[in-house]
Amino acid sequence: MNIYVDNAATTKVCPTALAAMLPCFTESYGNPSSPHHIGNEAAKLLIDARKTIADYLGAEPSEIIFTSGGSEADNQALVTAAVLGSRKGKKHIISTKFEHHAILHTLNKLEKEGYEVTLLDVHEDGLVRLSDLEAAIRPDTALVTIMYANNEIGTIQPISEIGALCHEKGVIFHTDAVQAAGHLPINVKEQNIDMLSISAHKFHGPKGAGVFFCRRGLPITAIIEGGAQERGKRAGTENVPAIVGMAAAFKEACDNMSTNMPKVQALRDKLIDGILPLPEVILNGDRKNRLPGNVNVSVKGIEGESLLMMLDNVGICASSGSACTSGSLDPSHVLLAIGLVHEVAHGSLRLTLSEYNTEEEVDYILEKLPPIVERLRSMSPVWKRMMAEKV
Amino acid sequence: MNIYVDNAATTKVCPTALAAMLPCFTESYGNPSSPHHIGNEAAKLLIDARKTIADYLGAEPSEIIFTSGGSEADNQALVTAAVLGSRKGKKHIISTKFEHHAILHTLNKLEKEGYEVTLLDVHEDGLVRLSDLEAAIRPDTALVTIMYANNEIGTIQPISEIGALCHEKGVIFHTDAVQAAGHLPINVKEQNIDMLSISAHKFHGPKGAGVFFCRRGLPITAIIEGGAQERGKRAGTENVPAIVGMAAAFKEACDNMSTNMPKVQALRDKLIDGILPLPEVILNGDRKNRLPGNVNVSVKGIEGESLLMMLDNVGICASSGSACTSGSLDPSHVLLAIGLVHEVAHGSLRLTLSEYNTEEEVDYILEKLPPIVERLRSMSPVWKRMMAEKV
Repeated sequence: MNIYVDNAATTKVCPTALAAMLPCFTESYGNPSSPHHIGNEAAKLLIDARKTIADYLGAEPSEIIFTSGGSEADNQALVTAAVLGSRKGKKHIISTKFEHHAILHTLNKLEKEGYEVTLLDVHEDGLVRLSDLEAAIRPDTALVTIMYANNEIGTIQPISEIGALCHEKGVIFHTDAVQAAGHLPINVKEQNIDMLSISAHKFHGPKGAGVFFCRRGLPITAIIEGGAQERGKRAGTENVPAIVGMAAAFKEACDNMSTNMPKVQALRDKLIDGILPLPEVILNGDRKNRLPGNVNVSVKGIEGESLLMMLDNVGICASSGSACTSGSLDPSHVLLAIGLVHEVAHGSLRLTLSEYNTEEEVDYILEKLPPIVERLRSMSPVWKRMMAEKV
Repeated sequence: MNIYVDNAATTKVCPTALAAMLPCFTESYGNPSSPHHIGNEAAKLLIDARKTIADYLGAEPSEIIFTSGGSEADNQALVTAAVLGSRKGKKHIISTKFEHHAILHTLNKLEKEGYEVTLLDVHEDGLVRLSDLEAAIRPDTALVTIMYANNEIGTIQPISEIGALCHEKGVIFHTDAVQAAGHLPINVKEQNIDMLSISAHKFHGPKGAGVFFCRRGLPITAIIEGGAQERGKRAGTENVPAIVGMAAAFKEACDNMSTNMPKVQALRDKLIDGILPLPEVILNGDRKNRLPGNVNVSVKGIEGESLLMMLDNVGICASSGSACTSGSLDPSHVLLAIGLVHEVAHGSLRLTLSEYNTEEEVDYILEKLPPIVERLRSMSPVWKRMMAEKV
């Protein structure tokens, strides 16, 4: 059995997206800026993709900038907002402690350039409090950037309320919606979102394409200079196949959301309910305000790495957290932000489901996981110490 | 007949590249950073692609940063060199008047940040003079960035000699090799290149992938911050399919260069020899030091746009110059740089061939072009005035 439950890291490209992409490689392969019919075909595909994505975000096509992915979109959003703030003498930015590194590292860079950053607590449940945000907003606050749903623990933030509060205070609101797009409803107008980032490969689109939505009236700063593509705000020949694939995947994900969400959520709940009875296992992040496909638990007394290896040996592809920081020995900044001690954070297991997972796969995981945990604990000095202290 | 002679704008993805890419979408679709076998498969593909590209550039795998394309690579190279220069108090950069806008616009940005830029003349033949460069290098020169081959007129610069001069003077040398890669031999060590940019879709690889080569020992500045991908120098999940396709296409282009180059060059020469006898047509750029596939002529007395439209009507996909600046009414900065007056620059026609073009296609172009030129001139007041002045 081969089970892929690492869909927060990346997803398989869906047949619809692949079918949409294929002609772009060898038939409509023109440069959208070229003045002939092969170029025009590509330009038309790009227009259609832009309209599809805009429609499903509740945005206008002119508000969509295609990027190479979520990280680039996050970088550009923050730089854009920082520049706009700076022009008004506003150099304070509010975010949270458990954002993706595409946000946190860009904030570090902005701090070096003289911006001041406040990172909000996300508490034990992995949720931002509106009262914390309200208290943090200052007259010189240029931007609030808070992720829609966390990539490790899947907790969903009260985006609409955050957006409303920002607008009441005259502050730009950006949300990194990379984990939410295609899985949770998004409407930038209704949810008071000024800027948003999404990434195709998190919703069964291809790698290499993302969107930076920026509300009309907010002048955009380019971070890749050059040709006049994307109205001069993002240079480089448009990645037409990936953009077309992204639009097809996003349409499919949004169209099927009402059936996929409950299905995936039922699998998630079955997994959580099956795992939590194991001794000394805790669910990380609020259970209710949580992505339909996210399971993140800490299995006390073991090392996450060994657990993943043994799961992989029986065909289960899972992770301990963000793929973007794998290789690092530091515990997850997300798990530390919700108050886990290092030792417990090290034993975390993330299982992220998609609509392609089945109940049979969940049953298989629930069959394989407990004996693996037991075996690892039987060899673990940490676990033995924990048990000894309990007695 | 459908003839694509706009290969400098973009190319059709070759079967080898597409075949290499396809499994990455639905089989080896993992995130290369993920700790399981599907992630490992992707990681292995990435390692192989990096090694292939490094080998064919004469570089080390650790010197290769994968980007979303040539523009991003150009931006990152210039920013990296500017930061390195600045640390030593060197804030002077030398380039040329006819670089791609990914270079020129990034230089504009650096000028606003306090750098000083000298743009070398490229003379009537579209070639940089070493003596001009030598005279321009100052003690505070941080970087020389000169393109390997021009994207509009195809002229090839004396890269090795430029690199040698830069190294003699202790200056970092970057070359935008976007038009050269896969078409001309590249060896970064032998050619004294410190930094180089290439783009997959110019040599029958896919859009959305490029390379920033940066010689070991030159610390890189990231322009997209976030995850730890590309040794922390370029965040964002790696675009595995496009990178794998780029490596396959680059390998194929380099392996077949010795047979493709003379073949394409013969087609080019036949085209040039067939077009130049038309009255008042000039070849733009040196005829000898020229990309094997590049034809760029000015057809006096007509508008390039009308010419392209009529060629497209008979199935010939050509361009007037860079696709990246299409839509602009300004004449090409490249043609102005080689001394053309506005009126003549407006009548330019670029035909860029690849190994997929045939002699039959060249014959067809040579059959269709002259009557179209004649017809357009018969309606052109500019042409009539030119003829009247001649008498």
